[in-house]
Amino acid sequence: MSILVVGSVALDTVKTPFGQVIDVLGGSASYFSTAASYFSDINLVAVVGEDFPDEHVELMKGRNIDLTGLQRMPGKTFRWVGEYGYDLNEARTHSTCLNVFESFRPHIPDNYKDSPYVFLANIDPELQLDVLKQVNDPELVALDTMNFWIEGKAEALRETLRHVNVLIINEAEARQLTQEYHLLHAARALLSWGPWALVIKRGSYGALLFTSESIFSAPAYIMDKVFDPTGAGDSFAGGFMGYLENTHNTTEASIRQAIIFGSVMASFNCENFSVQRLSNLTYQEIEQRFREFRQLTHFDDLTGSIRR
Amino acid sequence: MSILVVGSVALDTVKTPFGQVIDVLGGSASYFSTAASYFSDINLVAVVGEDFPDEHVELMKGRNIDLTGLQRMPGKTFRWVGEYGYDLNEARTHSTCLNVFESFRPHIPDNYKDSPYVFLANIDPELQLDVLKQVNDPELVALDTMNFWIEGKAEALRETLRHVNVLIINEAEARQLTQEYHLLHAARALLSWGPWALVIKRGSYGALLFTSESIFSAPAYIMDKVFDPTGAGDSFAGGFMGYLENTHNTTEASIRQAIIFGSVMASFNCENFSVQRLSNLTYQEIEQRFREFRQLTHFDDLTGSIRR
Repeated sequence: MSILVVGSVALDTVKTPFGQVIDVLGGSASYFSTAASYFSDINLVAVVGEDFPDEHVELMKGRNIDLTGLQRMPGKTFRWVGEYGYDLNEARTHSTCLNVFESFRPHIPDNYKDSPYVFLANIDPELQLDVLKQVNDPELVALDTMNFWIEGKAEALRETLRHVNVLIINEAEARQLTQEYHLLHAARALLSWGPWALVIKRGSYGALLFTSESIFSAPAYIMDKVFDPTGAGDSFAGGFMGYLENTHNTTEASIRQAIIFGSVMASFNCENFSVQRLSNLTYQEIEQRFREFRQLTHFDDLTGSIRR
Repeated sequence: MSILVVGSVALDTVKTPFGQVIDVLGGSASYFSTAASYFSDINLVAVVGEDFPDEHVELMKGRNIDLTGLQRMPGKTFRWVGEYGYDLNEARTHSTCLNVFESFRPHIPDNYKDSPYVFLANIDPELQLDVLKQVNDPELVALDTMNFWIEGKAEALRETLRHVNVLIINEAEARQLTQEYHLLHAARALLSWGPWALVIKRGSYGALLFTSESIFSAPAYIMDKVFDPTGAGDSFAGGFMGYLENTHNTTEASIRQAIIFGSVMASFNCENFSVQRLSNLTYQEIEQRFREFRQLTHFDDLTGSIRR
């Protein structure tokens, strides 16, 4: 059993108040895969250029990520240069060079086509739909997107969402996509467009899960130091999808636990640059942090009455 | 048993995207008292001018709030004029006329002096300290403040905090007061200054409780419509202090429940202007919303292992 992820593999140059790195492994598919690899087999589809370092390939192979679908094209790898100030919730992008990613056309290898879980990371919604046409009736499809596609390809995105079960976006994107300021109204609109679950990422404020049945509010881990938040959203999606695939259980109770595992992986992601922390975790550390989230949110039911 | 609250009683003129009201009952002590009155007897100390309408006095009396300490002075009542856009987390102040509040010197009536719980709402920290000198060894003292005092009276505030058990402020104030950007570092600093508990209010993102032992993250209620957030912070403090006084229990478990009752009262507060919603609640509604918060945050512990 496995998860197919289609997204970007990039070389990131990142500056935060705590340091700087040049051309490190980045991209939505890299973060997603590394996080999800603790829970499930991963089939990755992305594109890199001739300059993509072998060490990154080895790192992903070391996490047992299937790279059959990693296309290597003439030209340079997608590069992103960004910086964070002390408000680590928001990156300032200095440059984005799509390079080989600009002409990326996802080709799903035959041995990936029966993947029961599919994560469509943030790429052109027309390509996301094309991926769904190549796979054989997956059990669960989740999708991420961004303001660029909401602004430029709103109709294609609406069409793709009709075939998606779980939409994972951030708060501003949910508002932008629906033109609804109130989150609850935005959530109701999005749930009427196709997905039966909506996950709203709120950075250092945690995440919300909306279904037609209920709302679940998950906190963010209170971190000693957010070293680099790049990839936190994709690491979240990796922990979330990974746990669901691991248990093959999409009851409300299981989805809530999956949201917490997403939050767990996002918190580890922020502890170092690139996938440095994410790639060398133990199961003990992951389960321990899950329990810390319980401790962070638990409160007792009322026993007496407050009436007086 | 009772709570002494010292703060402002004001006449507010407020505009939100949903409507506008003129000279309605406002002020920290009004919101706090109304919310806390469901849980505890309230002794209020504040000042109003000759123009203060009898209907507001009657409303507070109707909630059994003791108004012995409500001074009536020559002049006009404190007036605030403000407006909210769609981001209801932040008010734009059009005018603040302190009027009689400018020369407010809290006088604690004799029958208030044994109040076991004291809430020092947002006033000059020198006056807050003076209040503590007038009362007889309270069991629990909580304090709120704002950027104005942090900028202008930082030293007096530090001195007053030495005598405070629970500090209740918002996220930006915690950072400003400690000059620490990271919330956890700010929290540790504040807990070293006197209080054994720190409550950080985060508006529509909920609240955090820090003690030397642990951290608790409480969500905000996901509201259909935030009608007017004015007074939400003081309503929160009212529900929080009220529940603690109601149960006379300051164990960690009880403080966590108190944070939820604070969140419950803040959510009701936002459903209408002034104390309109807050002043006509039933215990059934309050307890029902507490249970909704449980539903909003509950997730199951791990039963199996994620190892594979």
